[in-house]
Amino acid sequence: MQKAGIPSGTRDFSPDTVEKRKFLLKTIENRFKIFGFVPLETPAMENLETLSGKYGDEGDQLLFKILNSGDYLIKSDKSAFEETNSKKFTPSVAEKGLRYDLTVPFARYVAMHRHELTFPFRRYQMQPVWRADRPQKGRYREFWQCDGDIVGTDSLVCEIELLNLYSVIFADLTLPVIIRYNNRKILDEIAVKVGMSEFLRDLLIIIDKVDKIGEQGVEDLISKQSFAEKGIRYWKILQEVKNIKTLDNQIEFLSNFLGQGSIAMEELVFVSKNAPADSNFDIMLARGLNYYTGTIVEVIPDKTKLMQDINMGSIGGGGRYDNLTGIFGLDGVSGVGISFGLDRIYDLIDACSLFPEMNTLNTKLIFCCFDQKAIDYSLPMVFSLRALNIVTEIYPGTAKIKKQLEYASNKKIEYCVIVGDTEVETGELTLKNMETGEQIKTNFNQLTKLFTH
Amino acid sequence: MQKAGIPSGTRDFSPDTVEKRKFLLKTIENRFKIFGFVPLETPAMENLETLSGKYGDEGDQLLFKILNSGDYLIKSDKSAFEETNSKKFTPSVAEKGLRYDLTVPFARYVAMHRHELTFPFRRYQMQPVWRADRPQKGRYREFWQCDGDIVGTDSLVCEIELLNLYSVIFADLTLPVIIRYNNRKILDEIAVKVGMSEFLRDLLIIIDKVDKIGEQGVEDLISKQSFAEKGIRYWKILQEVKNIKTLDNQIEFLSNFLGQGSIAMEELVFVSKNAPADSNFDIMLARGLNYYTGTIVEVIPDKTKLMQDINMGSIGGGGRYDNLTGIFGLDGVSGVGISFGLDRIYDLIDACSLFPEMNTLNTKLIFCCFDQKAIDYSLPMVFSLRALNIVTEIYPGTAKIKKQLEYASNKKIEYCVIVGDTEVETGELTLKNMETGEQIKTNFNQLTKLFTH
Repeated sequence: MQKAGIPSGTRDFSPDTVEKRKFLLKTIENRFKIFGFVPLETPAMENLETLSGKYGDEGDQLLFKILNSGDYLIKSDKSAFEETNSKKFTPSVAEKGLRYDLTVPFARYVAMHRHELTFPFRRYQMQPVWRADRPQKGRYREFWQCDGDIVGTDSLVCEIELLNLYSVIFADLTLPVIIRYNNRKILDEIAVKVGMSEFLRDLLIIIDKVDKIGEQGVEDLISKQSFAEKGIRYWKILQEVKNIKTLDNQIEFLSNFLGQGSIAMEELVFVSKNAPADSNFDIMLARGLNYYTGTIVEVIPDKTKLMQDINMGSIGGGGRYDNLTGIFGLDGVSGVGISFGLDRIYDLIDACSLFPEMNTLNTKLIFCCFDQKAIDYSLPMVFSLRALNIVTEIYPGTAKIKKQLEYASNKKIEYCVIVGDTEVETGELTLKNMETGEQIKTNFNQLTKLFTH
Repeated sequence: MQKAGIPSGTRDFSPDTVEKRKFLLKTIENRFKIFGFVPLETPAMENLETLSGKYGDEGDQLLFKILNSGDYLIKSDKSAFEETNSKKFTPSVAEKGLRYDLTVPFARYVAMHRHELTFPFRRYQMQPVWRADRPQKGRYREFWQCDGDIVGTDSLVCEIELLNLYSVIFADLTLPVIIRYNNRKILDEIAVKVGMSEFLRDLLIIIDKVDKIGEQGVEDLISKQSFAEKGIRYWKILQEVKNIKTLDNQIEFLSNFLGQGSIAMEELVFVSKNAPADSNFDIMLARGLNYYTGTIVEVIPDKTKLMQDINMGSIGGGGRYDNLTGIFGLDGVSGVGISFGLDRIYDLIDACSLFPEMNTLNTKLIFCCFDQKAIDYSLPMVFSLRALNIVTEIYPGTAKIKKQLEYASNKKIEYCVIVGDTEVETGELTLKNMETGEQIKTNFNQLTKLFTH
């Protein structure tokens, strides 16, 4: 006998969970469709060449690699093996890996299919991704992402589209969230003014931590850097902007500071004017990923409006990138995308009991039969009811009626038809309401009407 | 620059394909639900311990194995490496593998969750599986299965349920198929009569080839075996049954041959009496997999009713197994299951042009703007229309109207609203029917009514 278990960080989804997950996916998908997005699906496996080097050194370590088939050791790297150098050895025995996110496969797809696609191309994609991360609460090794991207245009209308998608989808889910946006170009232009562009990347990594360590924490961390003086100056400007009460006044301050001809300000003015009312400009939003070049956006749960004390970071994020497909030989494709962290969103909705009551899986009616003759008699009725789209079961076998009713009760089946000798002879059926216990006499025609009207 | 490609045997699903695949999945799922089945999903990765030894030696070779993370070489099998023995080396560097089918993960799930489940438990599961098979036409390394099983009861009612599922689902898909069933117990009991039970497994592997090599081919192959004499005698009996014209007469012949007290005949009589009208008893159906113990079933395309010359084998199959979960320490769980080969079914429906016309992805209406002012003016209208569930786009940016209309035409968008200075000033909009080219003057209120009535 062998122990039944699953790999750590992975999960089985039982029927109730699948039902709620499908509700979540469908809610999101519905809006994507209304916004004119089309679905895309890519394989779970990609060539390691496609995945490697796209997520930094740490990301490369977190890729799940698939062992080549057959006598793969023949072509393996003997010297790497003798050095016990796993990292060097791996490429000689593994050519494929599991998808780490949906962005790189999308870029690869766009490059491969450039001649068939109509640009601007807007697609959504909802699929699992895999990361060999250390599993912990809310962090899984197999988890689902949902990405929406518009590529092949640098129009800021796309930013508005995606901000609105966040807004309407989280409203549909009745989940109170804070949608924050910023623009990398603003952060860049301030850096030029302060004369610290070369350190900006390192500085943004620190600023990105503000939600966790607070403003004082950020300041303390900056003071320890080689670029401390300019860094603090930069940080004070962000704080000054943040402390200005209205968006109009923030824009006025930044316009004055950055001066005429600022592309950043032109973008911010358009985006902030057309962004949905429930989104907010936040000068301190930095987002770690280096490939963003324009608007950036992030969604976090609005803890002040949640019934539960939830400790959860970002549940969605995205931004504008200028050269998504360059690495695959297709230059000049600007795009903007957003991502939904489906498992975190699921966990949040579930923890806050915000899923609507669902009963799409509930069987309406079950036939419970005393004996084989009753089964023979009932089967054609069961199939007729199903042909009318009534979710119907027949208890398989002739267990004691008590046991059959227990089954019906466990499965929350609403009605039960009990069939024995009398029923077979007379055609009169006994219909039992499983909630009230009430029983009525009926026949097949009446039954059909009862459940179809 | 790097070449954009995907692993051989895997596929990207472009929007049109995703839409048709979803239609297929939904059609099948709908019936499963009406029959009272609930959905289950299991992780892509299983422990190799769970998967190994379940699919025979060949199956073990076809498992995709996942390389352990970190410095996995430290614990690797040095002697196996020095022998260049890949098969022996693998378990020392890979603990996980990709799901090979949906049956073993289901058995593992039932064993793990035995205390929470209500038996008899009926679940369906639609997920991809992975096999390191040599890719060829119609055979993929990543492909989708859909399984339905009822476990925890030996009632033959379940066989009837599953035969009916096949019948109604393929009818829903308007796909002409032949549903054939048989019973392993009949094949067993005939073997007892002929005195060749010990060779039955090898004989059935040969008989299973009858669709490919014909009856004479089967006979030739049997004559070359050590059990040729008894084998031929066995085969002649099957031929004799097959040549009997009516089911009643076949049953009469078999009843006489097997004698009183035959469990096989008791089962066959019940199943054949209640099976759907479009299913057929076929004494020559054997099905290779050794774990079947009762009724077996197989679905093939009905070539005589297809418009195309399709060369395709089984698109579905299943049967009764007596001890699914025994290996995981849960004995006495009898069950019966069927499987749909979703990719073959897709390929078949597509080749025969049997997918219904689909336009769920088509955008109804697009706003094309001459300039930035027109965009500012249009955006609120776009969002209002979407709030009414009208699939609406706004062309991102102010490309030439000709280019915008080209985009609309490529995407088969039905209507186009063209917005320039006049429209912004007067509120009068121009609505163009993209199919007829007809243009009418309207305003936002009228537009709303036009698309919601």
